[in-house]
Amino acid sequence: MTSKSLRKTIQQLNQDPQRAQVMAADCPSRAVLGHITSRWGVLVLVMLLERTHRFSELRRAVGGVSEKMLAQTLDALAHDGLVLRVAHQVVPPHVEYSLTPLGREAAIRLEVLVDWIEENFPLIKQAQDAAALKAA
Amino acid sequence: MTSKSLRKTIQQLNQDPQRAQVMAADCPSRAVLGHITSRWGVLVLVMLLERTHRFSELRRAVGGVSEKMLAQTLDALAHDGLVLRVAHQVVPPHVEYSLTPLGREAAIRLEVLVDWIEENFPLIKQAQDAAALKAA
Repeated sequence: MTSKSLRKTIQQLNQDPQRAQVMAADCPSRAVLGHITSRWGVLVLVMLLERTHRFSELRRAVGGVSEKMLAQTLDALAHDGLVLRVAHQVVPPHVEYSLTPLGREAAIRLEVLVDWIEENFPLIKQAQDAAALKAA
Repeated sequence: MTSKSLRKTIQQLNQDPQRAQVMAADCPSRAVLGHITSRWGVLVLVMLLERTHRFSELRRAVGGVSEKMLAQTLDALAHDGLVLRVAHQVVPPHVEYSLTPLGREAAIRLEVLVDWIEENFPLIKQAQDAAALKAA
């Protein structure tokens, strides 16, 4: 394959009409982006990257999440095939959550973003303070 | 430095009490995570990675965003020092938005995530369909 026809093939692949397009208002990938980047979705996925957690452990680890919001977040992520829910038939019963291989791939990318924010927060804070001073 | 003391130093750096912690409910980095991963924040940052945009161009590029939500999103990102707003004193006046170097770093990480979602959407859709079938 010549370099020119290779470029053309790559161009065609990128323009694949079957490929999901988050910029398109009606693309169903938008909802997935919403689950993965939701307020609690990001934090839950990043926590599960560390290890499997019980519901109560997750609730403690993710500061400020309510029982209801955590349950909704886990349901959405399980429905997308990113989180695996395993109910152990023991007394007392307990439920464990872990990442599927697909969820792991998403969580790794989120962790990179979260690490970047934590590392660069001092610079962002500086910009916020400068903007506040300018507005005052 | 021995390998043991290096590990200890890395551990101490990660436990730096000054470092932002998105898992902590009261850490101000949470709000920044919120802006960057907001419904429209992700899409605006990724679009700006391509090139500088006028407001009206951004509105067309990001499918479904309202004028009000786009303005709010750009304000929050500008306040965090991620987006630069330049008003050109011409007739008719026009305003351009671009990424700051800091915003570029965040946007690159978001683009990796968005690309992953678009590429893997067929697998996520399969999981969704399987979950729907199981629930029926």
